[in-house]
Amino acid sequence: MKAIQIQTLGGVEGLHLVELAEPIPRRGEVAVRVRAASLNFRDLLVVKGQYNPRISLPAIPLSDGAGEVAAVGPGASRFKVGDRVAAAFMPGWITGPPTDAAARTALGAGGTGMLAETVILPETGLVSLPSYLSFEEAATLPCAAVTAWHALISEGKLKAGDTVLTLGTGGVSIFAIQFARMHGARVLATSGSDEKLERVRALGASDTINYKTTPEWDKTVRQLTAGEGVDHVVEVGGAGTLSRSLRAVKTGGSVSLIGLLAGGTAEVNILPILMRNLRVQGIFVGSRAMFEEMNHTLNLHATAPVIDKVFPIDATAEAYRLLESGEHFGKVVIRL
Amino acid sequence: MKAIQIQTLGGVEGLHLVELAEPIPRRGEVAVRVRAASLNFRDLLVVKGQYNPRISLPAIPLSDGAGEVAAVGPGASRFKVGDRVAAAFMPGWITGPPTDAAARTALGAGGTGMLAETVILPETGLVSLPSYLSFEEAATLPCAAVTAWHALISEGKLKAGDTVLTLGTGGVSIFAIQFARMHGARVLATSGSDEKLERVRALGASDTINYKTTPEWDKTVRQLTAGEGVDHVVEVGGAGTLSRSLRAVKTGGSVSLIGLLAGGTAEVNILPILMRNLRVQGIFVGSRAMFEEMNHTLNLHATAPVIDKVFPIDATAEAYRLLESGEHFGKVVIRL
Amino acid sequence: MKAIQIQTLGGVEGLHLVELAEPIPRRGEVAVRVRAASLNFRDLLVVKGQYNPRISLPAIPLSDGAGEVAAVGPGASRFKVGDRVAAAFMPGWITGPPTDAAARTALGAGGTGMLAETVILPETGLVSLPSYLSFEEAATLPCAAVTAWHALISEGKLKAGDTVLTLGTGGVSIFAIQFARMHGARVLATSGSDEKLERVRALGASDTINYKTTPEWDKTVRQLTAGEGVDHVVEVGGAGTLSRSLRAVKTGGSVSLIGLLAGGTAEVNILPILMRNLRVQGIFVGSRAMFEEMNHTLNLHATAPVIDKVFPIDATAEAYRLLESGEHFGKVVIRL
Amino acid sequence: MKAIQIQTLGGVEGLHLVELAEPIPRRGEVAVRVRAASLNFRDLLVVKGQYNPRISLPAIPLSDGAGEVAAVGPGASRFKVGDRVAAAFMPGWITGPPTDAAARTALGAGGTGMLAETVILPETGLVSLPSYLSFEEAATLPCAAVTAWHALISEGKLKAGDTVLTLGTGGVSIFAIQFARMHGARVLATSGSDEKLERVRALGASDTINYKTTPEWDKTVRQLTAGEGVDHVVEVGGAGTLSRSLRAVKTGGSVSLIGLLAGGTAEVNILPILMRNLRVQGIFVGSRAMFEEMNHTLNLHATAPVIDKVFPIDATAEAYRLLESGEHFGKVVIRL
Repeated sequence: MKAIQIQTLGGVEGLHLVELAEPIPRRGEVAVRVRAASLNFRDLLVVKGQYNPRISLPAIPLSDGAGEVAAVGPGASRFKVGDRVAAAFMPGWITGPPTDAAARTALGAGGTGMLAETVILPETGLVSLPSYLSFEEAATLPCAAVTAWHALISEGKLKAGDTVLTLGTGGVSIFAIQFARMHGARVLATSGSDEKLERVRALGASDTINYKTTPEWDKTVRQLTAGEGVDHVVEVGGAGTLSRSLRAVKTGGSVSLIGLLAGGTAEVNILPILMRNLRVQGIFVGSRAMFEEMNHTLNLHATAPVIDKVFPIDATAEAYRLLESGEHFGKVVIRL
Repeated sequence: MKAIQIQTLGGVEGLHLVELAEPIPRRGEVAVRVRAASLNFRDLLVVKGQYNPRISLPAIPLSDGAGEVAAVGPGASRFKVGDRVAAAFMPGWITGPPTDAAARTALGAGGTGMLAETVILPETGLVSLPSYLSFEEAATLPCAAVTAWHALISEGKLKAGDTVLTLGTGGVSIFAIQFARMHGARVLATSGSDEKLERVRALGASDTINYKTTPEWDKTVRQLTAGEGVDHVVEVGGAGTLSRSLRAVKTGGSVSLIGLLAGGTAEVNILPILMRNLRVQGIFVGSRAMFEEMNHTLNLHATAPVIDKVFPIDATAEAYRLLESGEHFGKVVIRL
Repeated sequence: MKAIQIQTLGGVEGLHLVELAEPIPRRGEVAVRVRAASLNFRDLLVVKGQYNPRISLPAIPLSDGAGEVAAVGPGASRFKVGDRVAAAFMPGWITGPPTDAAARTALGAGGTGMLAETVILPETGLVSLPSYLSFEEAATLPCAAVTAWHALISEGKLKAGDTVLTLGTGGVSIFAIQFARMHGARVLATSGSDEKLERVRALGASDTINYKTTPEWDKTVRQLTAGEGVDHVVEVGGAGTLSRSLRAVKTGGSVSLIGLLAGGTAEVNILPILMRNLRVQGIFVGSRAMFEEMNHTLNLHATAPVIDKVFPIDATAEAYRLLESGEHFGKVVIRL
Repeated sequence: MKAIQIQTLGGVEGLHLVELAEPIPRRGEVAVRVRAASLNFRDLLVVKGQYNPRISLPAIPLSDGAGEVAAVGPGASRFKVGDRVAAAFMPGWITGPPTDAAARTALGAGGTGMLAETVILPETGLVSLPSYLSFEEAATLPCAAVTAWHALISEGKLKAGDTVLTLGTGGVSIFAIQFARMHGARVLATSGSDEKLERVRALGASDTINYKTTPEWDKTVRQLTAGEGVDHVVEVGGAGTLSRSLRAVKTGGSVSLIGLLAGGTAEVNILPILMRNLRVQGIFVGSRAMFEEMNHTLNLHATAPVIDKVFPIDATAEAYRLLESGEHFGKVVIRL
């Protein structure tokens, strides 16, 4: 089978297309014929060696993939050959609260990765795909969509009339806009591009702010919310934007801390957290149960994931470069 | 009536004992004859001008006091003369979520302060004292005890078997130990003094750590919790301790961000919040409803607030200096 | 001013249009010039003497009304003359959990009723109307809409993808359909009329059941939900339908117990509650805070309340008779 | 191996001690050498044929047992030979919300039962025993203790200062008293025996009511709670006591519906549920995750389960008869 391997850390040039022996599922495992995979910002950090510098190489990258069950190991009974499935980002996090043990099963950072024609996974780590989605669309869900669902729904308990602020137009932010609209919430969104903001409005954001022309976007957010601030911020910027997010959220509101676009260590003024009873809730993807609940809901709403571009597997490096450029709107997908 | 006024900002020497006209309650208000007041770390920041540099002077300090109803204004019906009462820290935060408007009613930082023989308050901002407490004891409750209750009970949903980490032996930490024990939780506590740690064990902490002799106390906390970390940290240290607290809490656990002993701006590594699904919940005291619920429970348990020392009003400066020294264990009280 | 009085209990013939002196607001009160009022099933029980047989007569009926502030008593500052307002069903239930004291302030069952040109209310019991609604539309909200919001949102924590079952086409059920759709939920609805079911589908119900032609509607509900049952039932039928509702809800699901159309005492098989971990949550309207949250959301969505018919005040008896007939779809309104 | 079999339904005389072949664990299974088992009221209904009349006979009775791992099947890795374990009441309910599929794995009502020297169980259905408990004590936990934990802690979110009412002195009620006290709650308890009430006070109940001499015990409960009623009722009586429990709970409070001592079908007045915003929450034991959380807490508190009497296996019929008599206080245990 074909697969992409990270052979050296440092950058996209460390990725190589290789031919490997077809793997065989053992007891309780399933072989998935991957049809499509998608990229997340984390995958860029992985190849650069910034995510896990001690990763054992070669390693197959990516956490997100969708495909069909190609073979079923002894004792595995949840799925049968031909079923359309995706793996949970952490196949070991089934339900309930997060654990360290579950976190160690995360895909795509050493150990199992999804950018291969056949991937062996424990059957308990898989979910059925929403029936209306193509493999390319379904491949966008495991990390970005589940993260947005966990942040706004499982933890955020979003309800109609709440106000949500999203930052930028990466995968998590776009799913957050879609899920917020699905629950009747009002969405404010930022981007550095007016063209992207137009697309964000088409997805249902009622108010948009260009953070390049309005660097003090937190003030605009307050103006747009009667001086109060929003109920929830889906914070994907990390150190670079957290201080402004803390000023854009209302007293008693919450900030879902998700991403690290601008680094993980920040000079943060923690006073607003304390003085205004704010909640900063770290969100690291989510459980299989959240993924299943989300898929159940997607089936009802038939929401279309936003894909920027689909690449063939031998253009994997270009896919990473598009992600790195920040030019994309929605998800970058690789077809296998 | 006698009162203490902050006449200049900068330090304890700006405090002066003065004689003022007896104030009279207007419609919906109550005059409280204050019998005791207590100090919080915030009060020290106020006199130094570090809390609200634009405070209009002279101002009467302190948020915490307890006394008897001396007079009732027209239309006020919740209390009668002689009732034993305390004011909520923010008399405008009755129940439900926090609001900016409620926060602006906080006592002791400009506007109304409790270090006066008679204080006029809206009747809706008062609570009945637990019947078993002296005025000195009851004066310790409005800020420190309500904060601990809000953090561990109202927000923390503490249950028996949970593990709580407290830092130091200030008022909030000691009430947190008492409330945690009252709910059947296990308590780990730090202090810089072995003598204080002995007293903390007498209050029910099962494990104690001297952070002076064990500067990497977060590692010890993990060792004491089977490598997992605690469920809740009552974080009163601010910038100085937050990074360690984030390492001492278990995956999926929560840190109540309360105090600012070591400053409000910190170089914080936010990665653990994100990667381990941590919650950082800002806690700024609490509502009148939380205060009433706590008092109901105190009446059942007859828990004794821990008082370090009671000063007469003309030794107010000494009371502040004791607080500043960090030598105290529990609350510093002023009798009027 | 004109008002309707219940002069004798027993039926609609006990209602009389009278001319009363214009009332004047006292301290903290507001005079509301009522422009429209709406009927609930409870109002029918009240005139029949089945709700509160010891009601002191004459009494002004109805809990639901909307109008303008006509005068403001001394010390009242939340509203000014001309503001468009409605009274909360229990003006004394501001926020937080329900209390007996709050319940005693319920309108329209003795004491204050809304079917009068001018009604005096405590300013703390009023809410601002959603700006896009006519008085007739706004008059439908205080009981039926707040009840549906309390059941599905405040208590039910409804999320997109959940399945809701509504019974019949009274006011609560129709608001429940609208609120469920607003949150992205799937709605199954029953009615005894195919014509009404068609209208219910137009409001967004995806599956409808005629309980006359399908008396075992609980079985149909299960078939429509893959054998599992729904997440929430909005149970307005009382004794007559509860046993079926308990079979139509999924294991671990919840039934909001709201209405008493078919009586209050039932031979109920409680076994399913126990064996399937069901929740039966009584819902008696809701707090002012719920009403305000709902209005905030209505302003965002501009949802149109469904009104069956508007009557002039001198046709009040006909309005009650329409309600009693069960022929209506949505709310019955009286214009003043 | 020895085992007890239900050979005919109808009563205790249908139970027979038999010798069976030693069973062998298959893949993913564990063989448990049962050292003690305990009886629940449900077990009496099972032998009478009132619980599941279509049970396939012969069947091994009882859901509750504790013992040691005697053998481990291929692929099973959670436990090793010699580990002290108990089975969850429903070995298939691991965590998260209840499901019909999980309920079908309940022990002791057909299929697997615990009253045998060796029992084969899926390794995922087992929990480690609290280390301080004997097998006899640990055998009391799976049904009664987990039920009480689920009702008061997992669902009830009990906190210090809350008031709990327990009915009678069966296993669930006694664990409920212990767990309520562990969380700092106040306990009111009923029994038909003054002698048992004395023992209940020794366990920490502050107020006790003999329901034989005080048949209107709901009124006494209200008197003991300032006219308000309790926060939680642990309702084990079923149809016979539910109406009184609904009057004994405060407005907005909750009744955990657990038992069926007096039958499953009741003429219930549902009006108080509705008018006072009551919650009736069905509780059918609980998940493995609840059992583990409870055991973690028991280890901290070293609470002693209350055992009435321990019988040898050849006196099984006498054990059932003691349970049926209602004379016991706490759990009835059989030693193997």
